[in-house]
Amino acid sequence: MRTVVPFSATAPNTRLAPVLTPDERRAFAHAMLGDVLDALAGAGVEPEVLTTAAVGLDRDLPVTVDDRPLDPAINDILEHADEPVAVVMADLALATPAALGRLFDPERDVVLAPGRGGGTNAFVARHPDFRVDYHGASIRDHRAIADDIGATVTIVDSYRLGTDIDEPADLTEVLLHGHGRGAEWLTDAGFAVTVDDGRATVERSK
Amino acid sequence: MRTVVPFSATAPNTRLAPVLTPDERRAFAHAMLGDVLDALAGAGVEPEVLTTAAVGLDRDLPVTVDDRPLDPAINDILEHADEPVAVVMADLALATPAALGRLFDPERDVVLAPGRGGGTNAFVARHPDFRVDYHGASIRDHRAIADDIGATVTIVDSYRLGTDIDEPADLTEVLLHGHGRGAEWLTDAGFAVTVDDGRATVERSK
Repeated sequence: MRTVVPFSATAPNTRLAPVLTPDERRAFAHAMLGDVLDALAGAGVEPEVLTTAAVGLDRDLPVTVDDRPLDPAINDILEHADEPVAVVMADLALATPAALGRLFDPERDVVLAPGRGGGTNAFVARHPDFRVDYHGASIRDHRAIADDIGATVTIVDSYRLGTDIDEPADLTEVLLHGHGRGAEWLTDAGFAVTVDDGRATVERSK
Repeated sequence: MRTVVPFSATAPNTRLAPVLTPDERRAFAHAMLGDVLDALAGAGVEPEVLTTAAVGLDRDLPVTVDDRPLDPAINDILEHADEPVAVVMADLALATPAALGRLFDPERDVVLAPGRGGGTNAFVARHPDFRVDYHGASIRDHRAIADDIGATVTIVDSYRLGTDIDEPADLTEVLLHGHGRGAEWLTDAGFAVTVDDGRATVERSK
């Protein structure tokens, strides 16, 4: 299986702009990418990184630079693959080997991990005709695409894979449920979980 | 096992006030309660409803009215139970029998299903000393309480159990992933998934 982790190297995590500077967003995105690569390694998978611009990694993995939008970049890979393809987003800071195992294990043509807000945070495609369309409610579109090509489909019911780190409220999830570099980066940057009006949120002390 | 579904009958889902009237919030809360009871029935569990005020049900289940806050009401049950206790929140509109099976099956003293924002959306307690504290980041507190009493703990990694329907953005989840009364109620009320700036959201047509 070919496992691809797409990474937006140029301006990652723009929706975290209310709480992080551009440099901080880049550093935090790198930390989360490290978490995803660690979890994949723990699941026994050697991934490749598909990045929009050159990226420094702390390990020896294949890196492809492709500055096209996600859909054509991934569909190009799907079209030319002669083996199953997995795509795991780089901002799944809660991913664990066990959660990823639930993505890789089902022997179905298409395995989809939904993300909050209709996204598709990870998938495995074992059918040659599966293609992606990440625009809008992609999980619905990906189910429809899989049905259209007659593929068998499983939806992975995972909180960890369903939590992409996208907006300030998501930082609470990283601090509460992450155990890796993303959580460590946030802690070092002064973020901590606090309780406001009975609800958990994050606040920054420095 | 005693399975309790706490229901706020008086003013449910206040955080949906921007998009639903008080009457609509009550009706939608009832629809979601029906989904949770259906899913429990599908998992072979006969629950009881713990409600803050009298509630009409379309099925014959034990109903207890207790107008105290959630913590003392649940802790009273835990303290006096002579069997394992499960608590499943009434707003888990995506719950399925399979997802609930992953809550009930692990033979651990305490099984916790985290919810977004640090909540505890469901749990099973097989240890006589486990107590709840739903204030703040309750999933962290519940893990600590379980550790303090020497209980074995499992965290259920479920998107369906992790998605409590609390604020307007959550309605997207019901429409995309729900298959029951909550989704039907929203559709009948004119809500539909739409795509705004590349992201899935809901809009209301009537």
